[in-house]
Amino acid sequence: MIRGGFYQFRPVFGEVQRNVESVLRRLDEAEADLIVLPELFNSGYQFISRREVAELSEEIPDGFTTQRLCEIAKDKKLWLVAGIPERAGRVFYNSSILIGPKGYVATYRKTHLFYEEKLFFKPGANRFRAYDIGKARIGMMICFDWYFPEVARALALAGAEIICHPANLVLPHCPDAMVTRCLENHVFAITANRIGSEQRGGKKRLTYIGQSEIVDPKGRILFRAARSQEVLKIVEINPREARHKTLNRYNNLFHDRRVELYVV
Amino acid sequence: MIRGGFYQFRPVFGEVQRNVESVLRRLDEAEADLIVLPELFNSGYQFISRREVAELSEEIPDGFTTQRLCEIAKDKKLWLVAGIPERAGRVFYNSSILIGPKGYVATYRKTHLFYEEKLFFKPGANRFRAYDIGKARIGMMICFDWYFPEVARALALAGAEIICHPANLVLPHCPDAMVTRCLENHVFAITANRIGSEQRGGKKRLTYIGQSEIVDPKGRILFRAARSQEVLKIVEINPREARHKTLNRYNNLFHDRRVELYVV
Repeated sequence: MIRGGFYQFRPVFGEVQRNVESVLRRLDEAEADLIVLPELFNSGYQFISRREVAELSEEIPDGFTTQRLCEIAKDKKLWLVAGIPERAGRVFYNSSILIGPKGYVATYRKTHLFYEEKLFFKPGANRFRAYDIGKARIGMMICFDWYFPEVARALALAGAEIICHPANLVLPHCPDAMVTRCLENHVFAITANRIGSEQRGGKKRLTYIGQSEIVDPKGRILFRAARSQEVLKIVEINPREARHKTLNRYNNLFHDRRVELYVV
Repeated sequence: MIRGGFYQFRPVFGEVQRNVESVLRRLDEAEADLIVLPELFNSGYQFISRREVAELSEEIPDGFTTQRLCEIAKDKKLWLVAGIPERAGRVFYNSSILIGPKGYVATYRKTHLFYEEKLFFKPGANRFRAYDIGKARIGMMICFDWYFPEVARALALAGAEIICHPANLVLPHCPDAMVTRCLENHVFAITANRIGSEQRGGKKRLTYIGQSEIVDPKGRILFRAARSQEVLKIVEINPREARHKTLNRYNNLFHDRRVELYVV
């Protein structure tokens, strides 16, 4: 069993230190093995210039945010998945980092960029993979990646039992769609969304839909947060439930796949 | 614009002629261009022996059901998608036929068989493809095929604007999942389910969940039928809405796909 969940909160745009420190205070209270934080949790979402991205992004793992998360992960023997803007030389990625009790483990760079993210970030070109965190194997995807069924599928085929999904959702569909993603792959998913709204530089106001959730391999919503409440939620997850892909005596979701007929 | 929909009703097991004729009477009243009927609409679902399948299946297009549907399609200038058990020499398929005003057009043989269907039917090995029916391009999948995102994806990539989906659903998830299927592929879907229940030969009782539905490319449920009512429902569909895959100024669902990173 693994105690896994998310922290849904309201980042303040541009206030990296303040956001990180307030998250750390909250995580310090948590009794958990795995916590997922939202996309761009330390910076806020609505960038209006590349210069802002340059200022607020950090190198991984040497940057402030990764280092501070490593400290609490070590103290609390915790695994963390968190979205931050990544600086890699002269390019920027919308990234998710995996950190464990022994420190930094891996980065996933968002593959499917949404809307004006394309102005500021380079899309990732990672192979979708799973990471062994001892009690479970986890995969990472970020926000709009949910829209492409190939992502959760690739993570599940790679062995992910829990899909960790930092998000900054503004459209309404993802919470229900994650039920489908979990059913079709027989996996758990933890979607960590943010709350609040942002309106910067004359851009359209973005209102985030909250509703962070934890879904199990049978498509049951173990917990769905409210639209605008700060919530730290941890549930007991048995990753073994996602290890087999058997639906019934005759159907196994992976054995039943007819890959020779599929097209990419 | 195309007038498309479904007929949700209660087939009587084994009573092929009765089922077909009662459907024809109902279709005769319809003002429609395209109607989808349930899976195995003419035979009923719960086979308990191969012998029954042999008795109730028909050759396509020479069998009784296909011929009768061709007659009404011609009379009414109608396109029909209907699920029937197919006999092809000594093997049987759980098939869906496409019939138009000029007669029989095509057969899709169910690729992903559910539960004990595996005892009675051979899985299809069709390439997923779209058919031009004049006002729209349609694709076919059958019931449990919904569970595999590769199917709707392949149909959409082949150019299907409306996924026609005969079904005999007993599990609860499909109606909501079809919203995800339509969103992720920006297509329409018409799921034609049956109602009623069957319990044959000491097998577990199967209760069909009704809730046939029509969903648009934005994931809006244009109509969802009740769980146990007979319903013939036709709505106006604009297939052009499914022809482009543009979500916003920066995102096109198909151009954004990162096929080099996907795995099958």
